Amino acid sequence: MVDVAREAGVALRTVSRVVNGDATVGDELAARIRTAIDRLGYRPDVRARQLRSGRTGTIGAAVRHIADAHPVLRAVDETAREAGLTVVAMSTEDDPEREREAVMSMCGRRMDGIVIEPIADGHQYLQPEIDNGLAVVAFDRPATGVEVDTVLSDNRGGIRQAFAHLAAQGHRRIGYIGDDERIYTGHERAAAFRHCLREAGLPVEGRVHPGPIDDRRIGAALESLRRGPEGVTALVTGNFSTTVAVIRALGPDFGSLALVGFDDFGLADLLRPGLTVVAQGEREIGRTAIELFRARLAEPARPVRTVIVTTSLIVRGSGEIAP
Amino acid sequence: MVDVAREAGVALRTVSRVVNGDATVGDELAARIRTAIDRLGYRPDVRARQLRSGRTGTIGAAVRHIADAHPVLRAVDETAREAGLTVVAMSTEDDPEREREAVMSMCGRRMDGIVIEPIADGHQYLQPEIDNGLAVVAFDRPATGVEVDTVLSDNRGGIRQAFAHLAAQGHRRIGYIGDDERIYTGHERAAAFRHCLREAGLPVEGRVHPGPIDDRRIGAALESLRRGPEGVTALVTGNFSTTVAVIRALGPDFGSLALVGFDDFGLADLLRPGLTVVAQGEREIGRTAIELFRARLAEPARPVRTVIVTTSLIVRGSGEIAP
Repeated sequence: MVDVAREAGVALRTVSRVVNGDATVGDELAARIRTAIDRLGYRPDVRARQLRSGRTGTIGAAVRHIADAHPVLRAVDETAREAGLTVVAMSTEDDPEREREAVMSMCGRRMDGIVIEPIADGHQYLQPEIDNGLAVVAFDRPATGVEVDTVLSDNRGGIRQAFAHLAAQGHRRIGYIGDDERIYTGHERAAAFRHCLREAGLPVEGRVHPGPIDDRRIGAALESLRRGPEGVTALVTGNFSTTVAVIRALGPDFGSLALVGFDDFGLADLLRPGLTVVAQGEREIGRTAIELFRARLAEPARPVRTVIVTTSLIVRGSGEIAP
Repeated sequence: MVDVAREAGVALRTVSRVVNGDATVGDELAARIRTAIDRLGYRPDVRARQLRSGRTGTIGAAVRHIADAHPVLRAVDETAREAGLTVVAMSTEDDPEREREAVMSMCGRRMDGIVIEPIADGHQYLQPEIDNGLAVVAFDRPATGVEVDTVLSDNRGGIRQAFAHLAAQGHRRIGYIGDDERIYTGHERAAAFRHCLREAGLPVEGRVHPGPIDDRRIGAALESLRRGPEGVTALVTGNFSTTVAVIRALGPDFGSLALVGFDDFGLADLLRPGLTVVAQGEREIGRTAIELFRARLAEPARPVRTVIVTTSLIVRGSGEIAP
């Protein structure tokens, strides 16, 4: 850095400010320093900087698949950037072993903290890190065995919205196909759907089909729901992947029974009919995760908080088909 | 690590093997060591390990948006994992300043190298890192001002496939709407389309509409292409975002003219008509990027290579509408 300062003909302090992203350095001066940095091949040592400040300005994000469309991660990334933080993402593949590896690798790289979409297994392994000052925020599902700030969707409220919308149009034979109940959201949504059926005085038996996301399993559930004179006239699908599998299985029959999907997606309005959905407040979830993260860094001893973000019904046609 | 070895009643060497992911340690032994690691709160210091081995087993991926669906990043992530490498992803937002920050932050974290979807600006800033042993592989677009291994799609070949498919069905008035020509892929595809028109002896004037991805701009281009008795009967769209904007602008008219989109996507078969596309070999691109990466690490002085991956036409209905 001393060499860079000499090369650019500026004070060491000014180089330090540019290297540390201080926006108050004038453009021209900053450009001169950047040129000197390039010429000399100087590389700021993040680790040395971390040792001095104790903070890295970096958040690790451990999510299912970094390469899948992920509206919450997008909101996390955007909100973090606005706060001058950088997000580094890794895939957990929904595999407890991978999750642990990814998280520990992040801890070894001295991040300020992590936001995590936790897998059902215990997260006790995070406790020493948290005790050591790591900020941890869970989203979409709660972490188990460890007390951390958490942001969840109102899964039960969302299912109630979908059910009430279909019931209000006169549907009485309503089925549900969704994710595996071993997954937190899968469990919450299936349980909420059973509760809706009971509350409406409708039979539960044979109407609720949670299970793995697998085309064959979902196709069979759909067939069993539609079969016979008592076949369903309306359907709620429990997440994006199930919705897509059901639409594919319906083929030309898509539009012949009412369908409300949990989770919105970019092309839902281009389907014919357009897809009526329960949309999660993903921007709000991402924003809240970063807010909780920053509050935790600022005040490590503050009480742990869980925030529930409401869902909203978006009407586009598929959910407004009469019985 | 000594404490862990004592707690687990094993040799230090065995702890080291488990910590370093050596799969030859038996499951039971590994589990015992993991339990001891948990109990003692031991955290392997990635930086210390790096100092010893000189390698980190980590690849930084600098892509447009980490939260967008990204089939190439998915293939990079999967192939890397199969090779025992971990991928850490950061967003560049297609902003040269952000790209530089992301890449330098990765260099500061001592990654073995980076795979990058480069922005049009100069990448001279990477040269000192490369000289210093950083492996760099560019994909989707070439890096400029620096010689690095590169994986590209056959953009020109893909446009030729789309054009030939429409021409073979008797279309003579074929238009193109695509991405900004300042972007490498936008330029290649628009140029290839002009070449196709000329080669077929068709007028170019008014038929080729590259530009920013903006609903208004794309809607106006579509209107101008369809207007009058000489309006187009077939259309090629230059990338995923353009395709979606065009389908949305067409509304109920989708299916009234032939359409072939560049880029496949998960729900293309659920549209009515199904969308005919030129699909990029994204898995192949991702796999090749990791292969080049590993070859570069193994032999830093090997000649720089550019690999072009072929595209394929997938017929689903929208591209088979008669003039």
